[in-house]
Amino acid sequence: MTYETLNYIISMTGTVAFAITAVLDIREENDIDVFGAIVLGLITAVGGGTMRDIILGVPVFWSTQLDYIWLATFSSFLALYGRKLFAAPKMYRFMLYLDGLGAATFGILAAGKVWDLGFGLPAAPVILGVLTAIGGGLIRDVLAGRTTLLMRPELYAVPVMLGCTSFVIILEYFPEHRVMAEVLSILGIFSIRVASLYWKITMPMFARTG
Amino acid sequence: MTYETLNYIISMTGTVAFAITAVLDIREENDIDVFGAIVLGLITAVGGGTMRDIILGVPVFWSTQLDYIWLATFSSFLALYGRKLFAAPKMYRFMLYLDGLGAATFGILAAGKVWDLGFGLPAAPVILGVLTAIGGGLIRDVLAGRTTLLMRPELYAVPVMLGCTSFVIILEYFPEHRVMAEVLSILGIFSIRVASLYWKITMPMFARTG
Amino acid sequence: MTYETLNYIISMTGTVAFAITAVLDIREENDIDVFGAIVLGLITAVGGGTMRDIILGVPVFWSTQLDYIWLATFSSFLALYGRKLFAAPKMYRFMLYLDGLGAATFGILAAGKVWDLGFGLPAAPVILGVLTAIGGGLIRDVLAGRTTLLMRPELYAVPVMLGCTSFVIILEYFPEHRVMAEVLSILGIFSIRVASLYWKITMPMFARTG
Repeated sequence: MTYETLNYIISMTGTVAFAITAVLDIREENDIDVFGAIVLGLITAVGGGTMRDIILGVPVFWSTQLDYIWLATFSSFLALYGRKLFAAPKMYRFMLYLDGLGAATFGILAAGKVWDLGFGLPAAPVILGVLTAIGGGLIRDVLAGRTTLLMRPELYAVPVMLGCTSFVIILEYFPEHRVMAEVLSILGIFSIRVASLYWKITMPMFARTG
Repeated sequence: MTYETLNYIISMTGTVAFAITAVLDIREENDIDVFGAIVLGLITAVGGGTMRDIILGVPVFWSTQLDYIWLATFSSFLALYGRKLFAAPKMYRFMLYLDGLGAATFGILAAGKVWDLGFGLPAAPVILGVLTAIGGGLIRDVLAGRTTLLMRPELYAVPVMLGCTSFVIILEYFPEHRVMAEVLSILGIFSIRVASLYWKITMPMFARTG
Repeated sequence: MTYETLNYIISMTGTVAFAITAVLDIREENDIDVFGAIVLGLITAVGGGTMRDIILGVPVFWSTQLDYIWLATFSSFLALYGRKLFAAPKMYRFMLYLDGLGAATFGILAAGKVWDLGFGLPAAPVILGVLTAIGGGLIRDVLAGRTTLLMRPELYAVPVMLGCTSFVIILEYFPEHRVMAEVLSILGIFSIRVASLYWKITMPMFARTG
């Protein structure tokens, strides 16, 4: 299996997880119909990357890679009608882990894409990495009338930001170690996310009350 | 009257109806000043098409067709100060019908535009057709702090989605019947919308509870 | 000091003020962590201009002028941890004045940029001028779950709209007086804003109840 294939598989897994957790989270609080579920699942899965590409001024990624669209649509559908399966505690926890892996992968791959375009270096790779990872979820929360991630002390975006920052530093000073940097950054972000889910760690107080 | 002229007249009618119903709906729940009314009416009327064009990477339609802007601005103004006229039950009902005709027309014309650009076929014409029809209303609801369409069982976007899907299928297999497909898709969407308003039909339960 | 330098200094001052007032306003109502503060401060400072450039189809301004990003990030950080300093009544009032100066400057400079591109004349310079001035604040309010400016009778956007309109009229009929028009429009908007803050003037009733 090549490195590209691995990236592709993880991206697809992340897409599925983004859509499924999106639908489950909303469904828990609100009645929602199958159309709303698919739209919100789809937006969560591809919304961040869409905003990234619009800001970059490049063609929106899913216009030439429709598998993201099909998979997110199908996963949203599945999450709504297979809610009993996916909402079971262990399965939901597993989905949250995959969702964290997806956020880490989307963030770092986005940072790499921005870096390759030489767009707004060195700040933009970090900004657009974070936007790619959390942007779709922000739109979903706004459309569903939920409190957005930005107003919760959950450790979700900060690890992505730290990972993208480390990744950019390595790209600048050790460009020959790019693949390793990518893998380590994704694993680093993912580990913090898993730890924060497992031990229910939130942002520390000094970072919260200002 | 040519076919293009007819499309133009219906688009303009839809623009007026979008702006008027937008202002009436918000005004019913909240105090709003004339500036807010015009901004929200304008966004409702042209917001969906603006997002479509940005995603397509083509110039925003209203930059070369300012009549959409003037008409939406004027209609919003009219809706605020002529509220007594437009909020009268029969007139409001009539406006809702025109709004439904506008959504149908905007959706199908958008799907055709995306099809002609060969952008993300076959999924994007449906996605961007729906976005064009409901996107402006979604932004309005978010800015006005209202529950968005996605969280209500109203039959508004689903007919547009079904219509755009049929339209794309016909474009693929019977491209020679494009004009007829366009007319029939618009009428089909419009009929479902009128029926749903008349008999207060919402999404069926199997599609709602998941 | 050249005229460009003056514009630059005021733009930077506006960026600082946008970020600081954004963080203070949110922090007053909600707990927020340092990540959320920086994201919301940054969005408030550069969000409007980002949407303007996307609609114009030109490269996003901050991709080649990262000082806007650094300054907004640093100011947001400062506002969170130096809250006691900035939230003191006189200092906060001073920040509101700078914020008003920023909105005036961003609006008029944006209108000039749109004018120079010949984009959607004569309506687009006014629309995108207002969007540049208030767009970031609108996104912030939506993401933070606050009532947006559009639903409040505050005199904030209307002076910008009036100023951009006068500016466009002068550009059309007296293009030789551009610099003076720019200065006077900014000062005009700023004066109305200062007066509205000082005497707590809101939109007049005939403009509110419709």
